[in-house]
Amino acid sequence: MKLEKLVGDRFKDRPSDCQIDSHAIMVRGGYIKYMANGIFSSYMPTKRITRKIEQIIREEMDAIDGQEVQFPVVMPATLWEESGRYESIGSELLRFSDRNRNQMVLGMTHEEAAVHLVREYGQSYTKYPFMIYQIQTKFRDEARPRGGLIRVREFTMKDAYSFHTSQEDLEEYYDKCHKAYERIFKRAGVPDVVSVKSDSGMMGGSVSHEFMLLTPIGEDSIAICSECGMSANMEAAESIIENTRDDISAAMELVHTPDVHTIEDVCNFFKVEPQKTCKAVIYQRNEDDSYIVVFVRGDVDVNETKLRNFVGCEIHPAVVTEDCGLFAGFTGPVGITDNCTVLFDTSLQNTNNLICGGNKEEYHYSGLDIDRDCGNVEYHDFAKILEGGICPNCKKHSISISRGIEVGNIFQLGTKYTKTMNMTYLDNNGEAHNPIMGCYGIGVGRLAASVCEAHHDDYGPIWPMPIAPWQVHVCAVRSDDAEVKACADKLYADLQSAGAEVIYDDRQVSAGVMFSDADLLGVPVRVVVSPRNLKENCCEITARDKSFSYKVPVEETKDKILEIIKELMDKANS
Amino acid sequence: MKLEKLVGDRFKDRPSDCQIDSHAIMVRGGYIKYMANGIFSSYMPTKRITRKIEQIIREEMDAIDGQEVQFPVVMPATLWEESGRYESIGSELLRFSDRNRNQMVLGMTHEEAAVHLVREYGQSYTKYPFMIYQIQTKFRDEARPRGGLIRVREFTMKDAYSFHTSQEDLEEYYDKCHKAYERIFKRAGVPDVVSVKSDSGMMGGSVSHEFMLLTPIGEDSIAICSECGMSANMEAAESIIENTRDDISAAMELVHTPDVHTIEDVCNFFKVEPQKTCKAVIYQRNEDDSYIVVFVRGDVDVNETKLRNFVGCEIHPAVVTEDCGLFAGFTGPVGITDNCTVLFDTSLQNTNNLICGGNKEEYHYSGLDIDRDCGNVEYHDFAKILEGGICPNCKKHSISISRGIEVGNIFQLGTKYTKTMNMTYLDNNGEAHNPIMGCYGIGVGRLAASVCEAHHDDYGPIWPMPIAPWQVHVCAVRSDDAEVKACADKLYADLQSAGAEVIYDDRQVSAGVMFSDADLLGVPVRVVVSPRNLKENCCEITARDKSFSYKVPVEETKDKILEIIKELMDKANS
Repeated sequence: MKLEKLVGDRFKDRPSDCQIDSHAIMVRGGYIKYMANGIFSSYMPTKRITRKIEQIIREEMDAIDGQEVQFPVVMPATLWEESGRYESIGSELLRFSDRNRNQMVLGMTHEEAAVHLVREYGQSYTKYPFMIYQIQTKFRDEARPRGGLIRVREFTMKDAYSFHTSQEDLEEYYDKCHKAYERIFKRAGVPDVVSVKSDSGMMGGSVSHEFMLLTPIGEDSIAICSECGMSANMEAAESIIENTRDDISAAMELVHTPDVHTIEDVCNFFKVEPQKTCKAVIYQRNEDDSYIVVFVRGDVDVNETKLRNFVGCEIHPAVVTEDCGLFAGFTGPVGITDNCTVLFDTSLQNTNNLICGGNKEEYHYSGLDIDRDCGNVEYHDFAKILEGGICPNCKKHSISISRGIEVGNIFQLGTKYTKTMNMTYLDNNGEAHNPIMGCYGIGVGRLAASVCEAHHDDYGPIWPMPIAPWQVHVCAVRSDDAEVKACADKLYADLQSAGAEVIYDDRQVSAGVMFSDADLLGVPVRVVVSPRNLKENCCEITARDKSFSYKVPVEETKDKILEIIKELMDKANS
Repeated sequence: MKLEKLVGDRFKDRPSDCQIDSHAIMVRGGYIKYMANGIFSSYMPTKRITRKIEQIIREEMDAIDGQEVQFPVVMPATLWEESGRYESIGSELLRFSDRNRNQMVLGMTHEEAAVHLVREYGQSYTKYPFMIYQIQTKFRDEARPRGGLIRVREFTMKDAYSFHTSQEDLEEYYDKCHKAYERIFKRAGVPDVVSVKSDSGMMGGSVSHEFMLLTPIGEDSIAICSECGMSANMEAAESIIENTRDDISAAMELVHTPDVHTIEDVCNFFKVEPQKTCKAVIYQRNEDDSYIVVFVRGDVDVNETKLRNFVGCEIHPAVVTEDCGLFAGFTGPVGITDNCTVLFDTSLQNTNNLICGGNKEEYHYSGLDIDRDCGNVEYHDFAKILEGGICPNCKKHSISISRGIEVGNIFQLGTKYTKTMNMTYLDNNGEAHNPIMGCYGIGVGRLAASVCEAHHDDYGPIWPMPIAPWQVHVCAVRSDDAEVKACADKLYADLQSAGAEVIYDDRQVSAGVMFSDADLLGVPVRVVVSPRNLKENCCEITARDKSFSYKVPVEETKDKILEIIKELMDKANS
């Protein structure tokens, strides 16, 4: 491919509307073009990258006995009604009517379609286990698309679905898939992607993992233990907090506390640490606006996902009205109105002598001892795990919080879909059961953008060899020099004949323009043919990541490049 | 791949709801599964076939300097408003609102997206020509999906868009693309696809060709000249009709003709041939229900596409009301109401002594001589070309009408989109022009189904080697026989190691079941390992299309198969 003919503009300056580097680079480098909120077109370099990623994914899915199939993008609503998700998913599921007024949806995930495809096939236990997958366009009507290809509305995703007759079999396959994912990320150039335990959210099921690329611009927060290596999405990580009771529990006392609203106010007024306070965090259920009051230790925050999973419905931060019986800033567990659900976080276990709200304007209690004063209390985990907190695995104070981009996920779904959609098989005794499912996703475009985020400098991306749009970038500096042109032309032709993927810049532009364009294309190996090099009968081979730079005799250049390509490919695939 | 693990059921009987063979076969063979009207999921064999077709298309598009890109499936309505198609296309364009109430469409073709992608890039004449293409899911809300993958609502299509600075350059590229299409269809196993001149319809532009697989189940009618080879879609084929005037034109005479409504009635009443009658065919414009009366010779039918193109708007057969001034069954060109557009077909040129309607209930005229009686008449081509009609190319009476499936099309679009969407480039004098576009489509799934339609027998498809789901099908007949099992296992392993794509049937089922399943998978080369063959130290290699059958010594079997595969691939690619 001659760079001169490559469709797409490259820009010198960072676009002002790009918050993250990969987004800016992919716009600057002629990779993507904005069409609408969260909707992009892709130019040739992106397409070449994503096709390579897709092929890596395909090979690894085939290696664990996956069968590539294809589900429709547009599906009838009736299918989603079978699983109950037509109702349960919010407005990120795009719904519309076709010309015959049939309700349809745009697929954002394909559990229903997978069950539909194999419901008849899988009627006997002898057919199990099996896995089907597709690589297909999906649409998710995100409220806040952001970051170029990181969070879009339309995207290409590999989604896989496995079917099993026992939980053990699912778990065995789940582990296989976990390993396949590790190979995929390694081959795609991000071997440092970590898998973290996660919340299963709307997918249903219990055990699930997210594969996270750690980066400060990530949208997710991940708790990682520096001691034992445990990692989990903050939404899923168990929060452990150790308390020591004071030897003596003081008596409760109602104290007049004008203008004392926040935990900070309380600490100042009573001269205590936040650990000695009991904070009320108030939510309302979306369905009926009924109140939920969660009591946590004053220095701890509520994790809404944990709370949502516990109460089993959607919630939002409360609007505390005058007549609801709660007192904003003065809500405590003693004497609280019956008009709400009261929950206690484990951070309050084994505490005493706490300050808490008095359930009365401008009053707090001191001397709260929950077990003494609130009757039979059950404690549950509703808290966000904290930096420096206790690792739920090794129990050391070794938790650090990192940010990450989710580039893949795997779920043990159980029978959520097979049960609701009436998929059954007969076991060897002729008894009917619902198959147990797993599902496994990777966003192709997001992975490409994540690799760019992980591997770039100020001048552009540094694509790893296995997914680079081209393997080698030939620069003919001063292509008006006949000798340069002839040498570069020959190198271009020879490399292509040898099967290398070459982008060739023989434009009559300055070396500066040529190199900055090459930086933006991020091809891992660059060869410079120039009058100066040719004087020494050499070409200059350099790595985009600056890891090597050689001057090689002209006649050895082709073989040296092929050797480097092979080395880099082998290393990634090893 | 072991057949035992292949997801998808195969059926013995033809499904009752399949009108065409390829549809029946693809359901029976576990290729596709119906999900909703015109919407299917695909199992692994289909996916393997379509991926191979896509790769053939990709190679041929790359060979004519195409650059693979990707456009969104979901696009903002505003983009389609720029070209005017948001209004002009009917309900086959699926329109809906996203969560923020923005109007969106599902892409059925991507001219607008193509212009959007390159509008800034193509601002200088130095960038031209270039071609971009994608292979992507599309949605067209067809009123009447039919025939399995032949006419669906959701489909995968390769669509390409080229941009030029002169008509000559477009034409040169158009010819290149025409040749690339011929190679694609040859490589996909349907070298007999013919290209026919076609009507450009909603795409705009003038010159266009459809690539047709001739088959009785086709939806399109094609006029083919048996003398000169000219071929054209009936909708685009010029109709030529020769008339000879009678020496003497009789005077016009109003005749009372009660109960004489049809041309047949007229011929019986007046004792004339239909060629001596002038028929009125009445339409209404969709936009305002205004009337259009087309006069044609009595034995000729109106081609609505030609009429639609001439009047430049959508039309429908008229409802002739009492007060509209027209008389159903009695409408003629003399004394017709001013309240309608009157058109004359060329079939009436050089005629006289015709019978026509009297524009009065129960009356006809005899002795019509249009040139004498109707003033300055212009004749245009509105007629359907007829079997046995005159070839517009060689002028012989040698037209035959065939049916065909459209598997691809190419259009010279001109500046329709670049003009409306304000895409311009500066020429070498600094003057601004709109680039000239071409567009080029192939339906991937429809091509797969068409190949099946062209190559099948009662037992299943006969896939051509380059697109077959697998290249060789190994049948271990009596796999409970240890020797058979060992030999077949080794053959399976050896063939795979040698890079062949193998499906392996080692189920313990009867030879009958095994062979009928193999027929349904349609793999071109079959090897049978059986106790009987092994007694002679042989394997049996047969072609799915029965073109060869060999008994080969066991130790030579692998090499013989590899040789056959290579031969069949080379032949298709030659």
